[in-house]
Amino acid sequence: VFREKIKVLDCTIRDGGLINDHYFTDQFVHEVYKALSASGIDYMEMGYRCSRELSPPKDFGAWKYCDDDKIREITDGIESNIKLSVMVDAHRVKEQQFAPADESPFDMIRVATYVKDMDKAIEMVNRSHDLGYETTVNIMAISKEIEPDMIEALDQLAKSPVNVVYVVDSFGALYCEQIEYLVKLYRKHLPEDKEIGVHCHNNQQLAFSNTIEGIIHNANYLDASLYGIGRGPGNCPLELLIGFLKNPKFKLSPILKVIEEQMLPMQKDIEWGYLIPYMITGMLNEHPRAGIAVRKTADKDKYAKFYEEIRDVTG
Amino acid sequence: VFREKIKVLDCTIRDGGLINDHYFTDQFVHEVYKALSASGIDYMEMGYRCSRELSPPKDFGAWKYCDDDKIREITDGIESNIKLSVMVDAHRVKEQQFAPADESPFDMIRVATYVKDMDKAIEMVNRSHDLGYETTVNIMAISKEIEPDMIEALDQLAKSPVNVVYVVDSFGALYCEQIEYLVKLYRKHLPEDKEIGVHCHNNQQLAFSNTIEGIIHNANYLDASLYGIGRGPGNCPLELLIGFLKNPKFKLSPILKVIEEQMLPMQKDIEWGYLIPYMITGMLNEHPRAGIAVRKTADKDKYAKFYEEIRDVTG
Repeated sequence: VFREKIKVLDCTIRDGGLINDHYFTDQFVHEVYKALSASGIDYMEMGYRCSRELSPPKDFGAWKYCDDDKIREITDGIESNIKLSVMVDAHRVKEQQFAPADESPFDMIRVATYVKDMDKAIEMVNRSHDLGYETTVNIMAISKEIEPDMIEALDQLAKSPVNVVYVVDSFGALYCEQIEYLVKLYRKHLPEDKEIGVHCHNNQQLAFSNTIEGIIHNANYLDASLYGIGRGPGNCPLELLIGFLKNPKFKLSPILKVIEEQMLPMQKDIEWGYLIPYMITGMLNEHPRAGIAVRKTADKDKYAKFYEEIRDVTG
Repeated sequence: VFREKIKVLDCTIRDGGLINDHYFTDQFVHEVYKALSASGIDYMEMGYRCSRELSPPKDFGAWKYCDDDKIREITDGIESNIKLSVMVDAHRVKEQQFAPADESPFDMIRVATYVKDMDKAIEMVNRSHDLGYETTVNIMAISKEIEPDMIEALDQLAKSPVNVVYVVDSFGALYCEQIEYLVKLYRKHLPEDKEIGVHCHNNQQLAFSNTIEGIIHNANYLDASLYGIGRGPGNCPLELLIGFLKNPKFKLSPILKVIEEQMLPMQKDIEWGYLIPYMITGMLNEHPRAGIAVRKTADKDKYAKFYEEIRDVTG
């Protein structure tokens, strides 16, 4: 697939940070930044900008806050055309400050939100837009929303200055036909100058194929992460996406290199990927939290028991 | 998806046997048989019936030959409606004998073949059909074939007594649009009373989604295996497929139970699943043998090196 409008965003540090409370070493983030830059990836997401009041620094690593100076430390001295993004939760906004875009290391602010918090999300988009940033709204938990509520949210977004609106399959519950439905619904309700993005989770080994489904239906912003790192089962693996896109602007070798040098050792410390408890929460369209919880217990591999318990609670 | 014609075939023992020269213990095969029977799976493939002359018994376990008596030992005393299948390679036929179907533990003989060996495959189908077996032809390495050759093969199969013709993505190279193309091509060239099957490999984490793609385009015979076991990256995970089909005749719990009790310990002894060398051979539409070879060396995780070498050889 060669389509010039396609932009690939790596969320290794941001979504991966959800596994380890954002405690990646500077060296790790530096190596990832170098590799993504060398491979020609369009955007790298550095983490969240959370409020230190709501999320106290004693509990989290640097990538929960992504201070401008911290980012400059990491990126300093590396030749790169990669754009940087940072995520904000619409429902947890308090005193986060952003410098004007031309004084900031960031190019894009991504606002994660539930449909019910769309007003807060759009407020953040307006603020960010006024400061000169590119903006996205990432509508989470979309597999639990009903169509009239989604349409209302999309109609609001249509009138906002947001650049990109994402389908976020938070629960890894969607199959290809549902991705098709959602991307087409977005396309129908958003003006042509707004792009559509997809952010898929790998509970059912569908993150990559659902991303392809998005591409087929003209989603142009694609989230992926190195070796699929991310909370629970993780995300669309960046290496697969780049292999598929076959766009000569992307280089696969630096991605493979950083996977072998950084991601394999990382996987010895923190867990992500296809595991049956996440497959079960995905299949049942539930938040992965029950799966994450059970993986920390002695029953972590009691799959049948987990399934029967969660099915009886949710069914 | 509820479609009565859909049949699920588990190839755990057969395709998994390609990893360990078919040395599964009787106890393991017995437990798998019990679990698949309890979960309502339609077919279980017990292994190959290979010639002992071409494949000497000093080199292989019992599931390379699947003698009738051996099968009876395993299945004896378990209540089950599951049908049993066995695979034969069309290009390696020599003195394999089959009892008439009504004196055999097997219900179905599956003939694996390349397009170029289609005459041999059809000869085996004729023999099997005359003995009273259901038959399939599994066309391997389909991602390397050109359309006129495939059409010729399909036209031959159309005139044969074969019941099911499979799309086999041997190299794990196919994307959803190619599965759609192939299943439609099969459908166009095969009479309506012949069914289409899909057997997908998981090099690019697409085995499950490509199986769904097959279902969407009316493939009704679906191969899968427990926890995706199979050579290299393995196959479509049975647990995902059953979760998707949502047909009440299938029970998920026995599948989850046998995964936790049998497949997790098995994975400590033999390797399968998503690994970057297989992702690379799949992406390049190559046989996984280079990946299998490198996984046995000290360079097993030198992904960038492997990619650059194989790309330069094959590109």
